[in-house]
Amino acid sequence: MAPLFPFTPLIETLPTTIPFTGPEAIERQQGTPFHVRIGANESAFGISPKARQAMVEAIDHISWYNDPENHDLREALAQHHTVSIHNIAVGGGIDDLLGLAVRAFLSPGQIAVASLGSYPTYHYHVNGFGAKSHTVPYHNDRNDLNALLDAVHKTGSHLVYLSNPDNPAGTYHTTTELQAFVDQLPETCIFILDEAYIEFAPENAVLPISPIHPRLIRMRTFSKAHGMAGARIGYAICDPEIVTAFEKIRLHFMVNRIAQAGALASLHDPDFVQSVVRSVAQGRKEYEALAKSVGLSSLPSATNFVTFDAHTPDRAGTILNALQSQGVFVRKPGAPPLDRCFRVTVGTPEERQAFAEILPAILAQIPEPK
Amino acid sequence: MAPLFPFTPLIETLPTTIPFTGPEAIERQQGTPFHVRIGANESAFGISPKARQAMVEAIDHISWYNDPENHDLREALAQHHTVSIHNIAVGGGIDDLLGLAVRAFLSPGQIAVASLGSYPTYHYHVNGFGAKSHTVPYHNDRNDLNALLDAVHKTGSHLVYLSNPDNPAGTYHTTTELQAFVDQLPETCIFILDEAYIEFAPENAVLPISPIHPRLIRMRTFSKAHGMAGARIGYAICDPEIVTAFEKIRLHFMVNRIAQAGALASLHDPDFVQSVVRSVAQGRKEYEALAKSVGLSSLPSATNFVTFDAHTPDRAGTILNALQSQGVFVRKPGAPPLDRCFRVTVGTPEERQAFAEILPAILAQIPEPK
Repeated sequence: MAPLFPFTPLIETLPTTIPFTGPEAIERQQGTPFHVRIGANESAFGISPKARQAMVEAIDHISWYNDPENHDLREALAQHHTVSIHNIAVGGGIDDLLGLAVRAFLSPGQIAVASLGSYPTYHYHVNGFGAKSHTVPYHNDRNDLNALLDAVHKTGSHLVYLSNPDNPAGTYHTTTELQAFVDQLPETCIFILDEAYIEFAPENAVLPISPIHPRLIRMRTFSKAHGMAGARIGYAICDPEIVTAFEKIRLHFMVNRIAQAGALASLHDPDFVQSVVRSVAQGRKEYEALAKSVGLSSLPSATNFVTFDAHTPDRAGTILNALQSQGVFVRKPGAPPLDRCFRVTVGTPEERQAFAEILPAILAQIPEPK
Repeated sequence: MAPLFPFTPLIETLPTTIPFTGPEAIERQQGTPFHVRIGANESAFGISPKARQAMVEAIDHISWYNDPENHDLREALAQHHTVSIHNIAVGGGIDDLLGLAVRAFLSPGQIAVASLGSYPTYHYHVNGFGAKSHTVPYHNDRNDLNALLDAVHKTGSHLVYLSNPDNPAGTYHTTTELQAFVDQLPETCIFILDEAYIEFAPENAVLPISPIHPRLIRMRTFSKAHGMAGARIGYAICDPEIVTAFEKIRLHFMVNRIAQAGALASLHDPDFVQSVVRSVAQGRKEYEALAKSVGLSSLPSATNFVTFDAHTPDRAGTILNALQSQGVFVRKPGAPPLDRCFRVTVGTPEERQAFAEILPAILAQIPEPK
């Protein structure tokens, strides 16, 4: 008998789990809204006034399709990074670009390498396009570069993924460590370097952009320091042959007009981004002091969030649930060893104050770990 | 020797052609801007004032990610169409949803059926995911339902695509014809009914929504009558099992916050959409009269564009080039038999006036067909 729906065998085997449950869905489940939203590493410091102005103006022409080439933004990004426009691919956030990279380099059944507990959407695409994730655990709360290298060599993988600075740990590797990693990768392996949080990192975490390494794809976003997560726009810096490959498969009208306009304006307002980075640095210090004051510790952060160490997965989960039930949206890593932690985005001063009052009250109700 | 880039075999074989060259790219090539943009079936009548207001307000929270479930919009669409929220999938325009349908139902090497010269992005996805397009020609400037049915049966295809009303012809099939088509499809074939232009069509072009047919996916968009092409938002109405399949593979944060807010507000302003439909009907009449007055004919249109018949592909191409070089952006179908035509979107009264002046002047320079 013919099946009712002629789904592909791949679709039939895919799980129904999704990369992230949004805070709105949790609010609907709980029946109460969050009053402190510090769980998704969204910027608490808004967007550049120039970006806002450009976005409002873009609404006037929203009846027109967006430029599918993203030409003006790509040109500006090329100038900004001192590369060619042919080195820039613009997409609907890093999420979109990760999907393109998986499609470009992995045939069904092939292996992708990354850390266990790294960005869920990367693994979602790997599985969704019929490839398989091979993971190696974090070591000392950092991506384990040696283990990743070994895994690439052992599996013959064409794709290895690394977030630097890392999400969800917040830690980073230096340019020296990263360069050694790149140098030791086989020629058959493409390295996706996810730099979503790079604006918040120290200078020695930022590999030089030029010369473009043929097997390195840098991914950047306007979601974090630029404050435009809800606009859906990011970009890749890579070899022109990879840009051309993405041209063959990408959704050409992916990036909406308003995001294009906002990103272009924000790129021309570096002072705004610098002010965000300073505010985030201040907030990180407060969170680190808070962690110490309540008898927790925190991982060193080069991002816009701080990963609080609750020492055991159970305790981290209990704290998370208590925070959420009191209207504070935070998240926690799902995989060991980081599942003993919960992750708190740097909020506004008011949000940090609210969190600093709720956290000790919650911890007072939770037994110390044995 | 290892290749420099470990692209998949599929990527290596894909062409570098893209579905559409945007008017911005043509402007950059020509070195002059278009002053009449009536080529991409964008709405000349803007967006609802309510949608505009909602979009401006959404910018205030653009630092927050969009709700990945598109919950509020899906709920409103379900109510609007008197179906369940589980029958609604929201995506980044029909372009995005077409890709999901191809991924859900076609394994590499399998066959997709559609008319020759139908929506390029559908064929782009079919090829991009490694499947193959099987096409049948238009008949009397309409999709040939019998030939499409024959092709489905002959090829055993799991997917057949039809745009009703049709783009690029502008013609339509009645509910009686469509229902007979659905009834004769084999159980193993999913029918994608692209209804991007449905608001402009007569009532007898609109199949009832309920009861939901398990193998029918209706695709709708906010790009046309709602005037939000640059916002990138559309939706599918289909069986919950298909919605669930899309959940397993879709880009969850695809649809930006501003589009979500604008679409929701526009849905609640039916008077605005009706006023657009009336304006378009007026413009179509003017275009039909214009075609006759300059010695061309036009295909009957149930859309927001009119397909002008220039009788030969060469003449259609010559007219198109002359229009573009005089600052008027129009498009023409690429495949026979419709490649003898060029396609003109209903513009504002001022744009129609400009076009009505330029077209006869151009035709005076072009020899009559033999």
